[in-house]
Amino acid sequence: MLSNAAPLAEIWRGPIPESAHAGHIVVADETGAVTQAWGAPETVVLPRSSAKMIQALPLVASGAADAAGLAERHLALACASHEGAPLHARAVAEWLDARGLSEADLLCGPEPSRDKALRFEMIRDGETPTQLLNNCSGKHAGFLTLMQHLRAGPDYVAPDHPVQISARDAFEEVTGRDSPGFGIDGCSAPNFATKMDAMARAMSVFATAHRREDALSRAAARLVEAMIAYPLEVAGEGRACTLLMRAAREPVALKTGAEGFFVAILPERGTGIAVKAADGATRAAECAIAAVLVRLGVLDPEHPDVARFLRPEIRNRRGLSVGRIEPAADLLS
Amino acid sequence: MLSNAAPLAEIWRGPIPESAHAGHIVVADETGAVTQAWGAPETVVLPRSSAKMIQALPLVASGAADAAGLAERHLALACASHEGAPLHARAVAEWLDARGLSEADLLCGPEPSRDKALRFEMIRDGETPTQLLNNCSGKHAGFLTLMQHLRAGPDYVAPDHPVQISARDAFEEVTGRDSPGFGIDGCSAPNFATKMDAMARAMSVFATAHRREDALSRAAARLVEAMIAYPLEVAGEGRACTLLMRAAREPVALKTGAEGFFVAILPERGTGIAVKAADGATRAAECAIAAVLVRLGVLDPEHPDVARFLRPEIRNRRGLSVGRIEPAADLLS
Repeated sequence: MLSNAAPLAEIWRGPIPESAHAGHIVVADETGAVTQAWGAPETVVLPRSSAKMIQALPLVASGAADAAGLAERHLALACASHEGAPLHARAVAEWLDARGLSEADLLCGPEPSRDKALRFEMIRDGETPTQLLNNCSGKHAGFLTLMQHLRAGPDYVAPDHPVQISARDAFEEVTGRDSPGFGIDGCSAPNFATKMDAMARAMSVFATAHRREDALSRAAARLVEAMIAYPLEVAGEGRACTLLMRAAREPVALKTGAEGFFVAILPERGTGIAVKAADGATRAAECAIAAVLVRLGVLDPEHPDVARFLRPEIRNRRGLSVGRIEPAADLLS
Repeated sequence: MLSNAAPLAEIWRGPIPESAHAGHIVVADETGAVTQAWGAPETVVLPRSSAKMIQALPLVASGAADAAGLAERHLALACASHEGAPLHARAVAEWLDARGLSEADLLCGPEPSRDKALRFEMIRDGETPTQLLNNCSGKHAGFLTLMQHLRAGPDYVAPDHPVQISARDAFEEVTGRDSPGFGIDGCSAPNFATKMDAMARAMSVFATAHRREDALSRAAARLVEAMIAYPLEVAGEGRACTLLMRAAREPVALKTGAEGFFVAILPERGTGIAVKAADGATRAAECAIAAVLVRLGVLDPEHPDVARFLRPEIRNRRGLSVGRIEPAADLLS
């Protein structure tokens, strides 16, 4: 993981460089070929939640989404790592209810809301975290919808369940290679491994999907459109995915993943991007994806919602500015 | 920071290595000489809260602590990054009150308690975080006590304030070299930079202090004794410093610092240790200090409170074991 990792970001405290992050970045063009790379494109990675739009492909390509009458907003939620704000929890609850399902059918596990007002309200009311608030509840609502469509059993996160087999098939299709294995994700679903260049290629498959007519491509194009149309559903207020999608000069679908992952899909160019901070740091992945998108002209470095991820200020407990994060010079020049 | 960094720890998710941490470790003997090192001993670092026992030296060496009637427990709190549990907040409040001071004199800034029961209780009661709960409030009570002793002005965190000048002098004395500069810490006090080998040397100065009779050495020995006698005051229930100090086979003073710092003081051997995770990850610093202390025979790797930092299990939202952190093989063999 650390072999040949390239500098991504530096943490400065006053005049002293305090910490630094390295990792791997791959940019793939509309043919899926690597056009730019920092670090080692052959590194095997777990894309974690950055693979959610891949995991949602069978939901749409199978016809399950249309059979269930899902709207574009639901497709965005299926690709989301949402913050568990009221709007997210309510939308997933209604989705499940319309399918004759409930929170009890979810297997993602409970998570406290990352929306501070709701989290505090729940603590005040003595309520405990719910599965609806889990950042993956939209993905799991999608899994359940596909499960019903396939008339498969309720343990939909088991690696040999038809839902997960179809997720793996879609993953191998868009990455263009067999997956060497999987880990179990925070939400209990299998998360398939691949190489960094294959993950960037997968994102370029999504970025060019609107040019093709096969079922998987039509599904991919609809998911990309949904993410771009509903940035708030994909993450939440103040979150990198939401803010950077809104700030972009051209349509872009962005998706974070645990342990320092980030991907970008640029449908006007057919470009796919994958970022992995080798140490798993979110702050490094956010800084690096912002830097690469600035380099490509997709983001304006002066836009305040870009600057807060590209060069975030570090403030201390009294609110004093005591440091900053700087992207590695190589990413910008 | 990343130049010549050595592997510290790997994050595994099932059969897939997901992330990895590198950094710098230096072990200094009773003469202050480097006996073992991983990574680059000449790396300039900010030791952050791992320098608290150094920052507390002038409080004791000046006679301020004795003039104020401080007990050993107060000295432990002056070196602490405590979790803001009721016992910590109460002890600091009483300390300030006995000095004719109050929370309003602190300049560390407010911080939510890291003690979950208290944090939830405060949210339920509509209370906001206080400066007493700041993990550095004991250090700041020490600064204030020294400030009174020196009859100096109230802005005791200013870099040119007598309290901070004496902290810098003590820092340069025990590290054996001039500091190249400082950053402003999370608690607004200056945090002085030095090299990794100089920080390990400083810890060996503390580890051998009980053998010497000069005022600074007597102060250092008292601080080490206080930390070892009051491990709960130094951090809190469930915290690495507290649990590893309690689990050790011989007396050891341990102190974490922000951005992946950790130090150890072994008074029976005269050994000092400094650890810095280059990327700033606490999980890596905790794993690495545990590994080095296991290697030295100070910690038993089978002890459950050692294993939880040496090889922590990663559990997901449903409580399933989905991965683990492994120390780099080089640290143990």
